Amino acid sequence: MRAADLAAPYPTVRLDSTVLDAARLMAAENLPGLVVVDDEGRPVSVLPGTQVLRLAVPGYVQEDPTLARVIDEASADAFLERMDARDVASCLAGEKRELPVVQGDETVLEVAALMARARSPLVAVVDDDGVLVGVITTDALLDRMLSR
Amino acid sequence: MRAADLAAPYPTVRLDSTVLDAARLMAAENLPGLVVVDDEGRPVSVLPGTQVLRLAVPGYVQEDPTLARVIDEASADAFLERMDARDVASCLAGEKRELPVVQGDETVLEVAALMARARSPLVAVVDDDGVLVGVITTDALLDRMLSR
Repeated sequence: MRAADLAAPYPTVRLDSTVLDAARLMAAENLPGLVVVDDEGRPVSVLPGTQVLRLAVPGYVQEDPTLARVIDEASADAFLERMDARDVASCLAGEKRELPVVQGDETVLEVAALMARARSPLVAVVDDDGVLVGVITTDALLDRMLSR
Repeated sequence: MRAADLAAPYPTVRLDSTVLDAARLMAAENLPGLVVVDDEGRPVSVLPGTQVLRLAVPGYVQEDPTLARVIDEASADAFLERMDARDVASCLAGEKRELPVVQGDETVLEVAALMARARSPLVAVVDDDGVLVGVITTDALLDRMLSR
């Protein structure tokens, strides 16, 4: 059992997708995160759901959580507009995480170790050209490990 | 809209649950993570799925990922036995993360900021006595934010 055998089809987003569309895709399909691909279909980022959420929380709130308490709920609408006005690329600037991407011949244990280390509930599987062939989620991996 | 309105029932595990039972619960119910409670029902830990997975990956593999490549798949059976022999408590030793727990009166924006900061796809909501009243997942939060 190698990564290629566990990889399943998964929807992707582009760098020029809006943050709002990306969040809607994730919510609609109950995805644990997003895979951002370039024009050739190569993963340029793999974002856990919590980090997509981070894109949706204004920076001043992240820096000073007490502000979240005083912000009126009504401003949440402005907040959706803000998500609609930003693209995924603008949110990735400065992102310095290990990219959870593996080749198809990696073992299940390698994938599990990477997922745990990168704290990513999804790992992208690529071919020799770096093109996405599928995604392994924590769910799929656990199902496989526990079905032995 | 406050945290209490978003909190939904969620299965819990105990400190003396085996890691294997905890992983099976997560896989069977497609949970994004686990809430560990004490005898009074107070959350003592909230574990993202990737960190439950970490409990399942031998320490020597986490320290030297190249070992994962040379380990034969057959040893994955030994590995399930190992999960069955350990309890959740033994895995939490040394855990030093911000506990993603909120009171029911916190705002949706506070919950979102905490989820992003703690990188946790689930946040536990507690009452005045610290007893779990429900859980908010990233999915539930996004659904709510996007349905405005």
